[in-house]
Amino acid sequence: MYLGVDIGGTTILAGLVNKSGDIFKFLEIKTEREKGYKYIEKNIINILGELINNSKNLNNIKGIGIGVPGIADINSDNIIYCTNLGWKNVPLGIKIKEVFGLPVYIENDATVAGLAEKIKGVTKDAINSIFITIGTGIGGGIIINNKIYSGSHKKGSEIGHMIVGKNFYDCNCGNNGCLETFSSATAMIKYAKKLMSDGQKTTLLDKMEGSTEDIDAKMIVECAKNGDKVCNKVVDRMVKYLSLGIGNLINLLDPDIIVIGGGVSKAGDFLLQKIRSEVYNFVIFKEEKKTEIVLAELGNEAGLIGAALLPFYM
Amino acid sequence: MYLGVDIGGTTILAGLVNKSGDIFKFLEIKTEREKGYKYIEKNIINILGELINNSKNLNNIKGIGIGVPGIADINSDNIIYCTNLGWKNVPLGIKIKEVFGLPVYIENDATVAGLAEKIKGVTKDAINSIFITIGTGIGGGIIINNKIYSGSHKKGSEIGHMIVGKNFYDCNCGNNGCLETFSSATAMIKYAKKLMSDGQKTTLLDKMEGSTEDIDAKMIVECAKNGDKVCNKVVDRMVKYLSLGIGNLINLLDPDIIVIGGGVSKAGDFLLQKIRSEVYNFVIFKEEKKTEIVLAELGNEAGLIGAALLPFYM
Repeated sequence: MYLGVDIGGTTILAGLVNKSGDIFKFLEIKTEREKGYKYIEKNIINILGELINNSKNLNNIKGIGIGVPGIADINSDNIIYCTNLGWKNVPLGIKIKEVFGLPVYIENDATVAGLAEKIKGVTKDAINSIFITIGTGIGGGIIINNKIYSGSHKKGSEIGHMIVGKNFYDCNCGNNGCLETFSSATAMIKYAKKLMSDGQKTTLLDKMEGSTEDIDAKMIVECAKNGDKVCNKVVDRMVKYLSLGIGNLINLLDPDIIVIGGGVSKAGDFLLQKIRSEVYNFVIFKEEKKTEIVLAELGNEAGLIGAALLPFYM
Repeated sequence: MYLGVDIGGTTILAGLVNKSGDIFKFLEIKTEREKGYKYIEKNIINILGELINNSKNLNNIKGIGIGVPGIADINSDNIIYCTNLGWKNVPLGIKIKEVFGLPVYIENDATVAGLAEKIKGVTKDAINSIFITIGTGIGGGIIINNKIYSGSHKKGSEIGHMIVGKNFYDCNCGNNGCLETFSSATAMIKYAKKLMSDGQKTTLLDKMEGSTEDIDAKMIVECAKNGDKVCNKVVDRMVKYLSLGIGNLINLLDPDIIVIGGGVSKAGDFLLQKIRSEVYNFVIFKEEKKTEIVLAELGNEAGLIGAALLPFYM
């Protein structure tokens, strides 16, 4: 059995997972990132301890895998960069190894979620696949030759920061034109607000009794489905740049499958059909065998499954 | 020993190569693409025959590798797409296998040139590397885990067609904003001509006695080095988008090394220093270990060396 932990901005999930990716025990706690690294470290150690105590004995457990919203240096087991959590060079891997005496593996959260799709989801039979998770930001996970690929210094698969054009606002990373400033949920909300402040009329406002504070991507998609012009403009722009980004990925890495996951992927077929019909405008070699574009199959537990089974895919 | 062939738009190079990448016999002929596929096929068979006759016996030769300016379907040994040569679905691999009874391997020309740098050039010690060849267009070769990577359907590593912005003219591929429309030799010439037709004064015209027909990238770089404002504008734009494209590659694939080859790379340190100082503006994780950016080491014969030794890196 293998322990998996998925550290998110709001919740931390942990579970006991077998080699097929089935979850046997499952725990969820709040991240409470405002309380700082030490507090979160203690909480993670506590839930791992609880999962181990619930299991027959420690010998059953072969390792601990952790997915983090950032990048990890595999050699030092340090998480070296987690902007969203305010972590820099924190010794999480070393600490957990010390406490439990088990091997510890740390990877980016989108990479482990993508890996879960490879283990028991939609890319099971794919040799090369790319997972794109679209939520507040855009994350990526790359599988090449049946192994996760995050680069020589573990800084790769940052699909959200591929620069694909010029945008009306800068990315958090400091650059202008990152894919996530065009095609994330945040990007959709910002563009919808921009169109509204330009005076364009939309049914979106009716939904929230006149305040633009609570607009979310789900509302925008719903209004677009119902024929709202502004919301369709927002969706079309999101789809255009996402398709362009996916086109770049296909021209570069030509995977078997590209998987779209994360909150925004819940817009389902409405979005998928639009993306599928645009992507091949941007692909050079359109003939014969093609990269498939599909939606993710697994839910919230994907990250911890992928994290738990990391050692088999490195 | 291994036979390597590099089919270019103007010349075809072939040679007998040992496992270390040393060339023992070498032949060069004109491509004469206007004479059509059958004629070129015959010529390639002739020079391969000559190289084999010059070698002690056929048993010494283990295989034939071919680099083509396009993409090849490895399963059928057909070259399925070579725009520059006007080839579509030509049976080159099948034919050569028939004639010589040896295994035949076909790959993209930038991929085999990049592979040569891995065999005996500047990426020898790199596990993951990307080769970018900048000439009339921009080509790419990707090495991952010490093997060439061209994707699930062999359509990958098309770095030149990564869309990175909006441009004032469309790419040959039909899209707008491809990297090769900003940073190839052709792109530099087009932008120089545009600035001149906008009325901007440059010493470039003195060099060619008033006609813009013969402008080439080399002249532009020379005039830029000598302080010409228009030419520096052209070089700076080329560098900006190339750096952006390289930044995208690093954020995505985080290789050990990125190698710049092809005709334009002969501008040497003048260009390299500019690129190095811009690339990290576009890279997310700037700290600690970094992707190196270097110039290619090998010359014209790189392609045939890489082609000859393909079977060891697939």
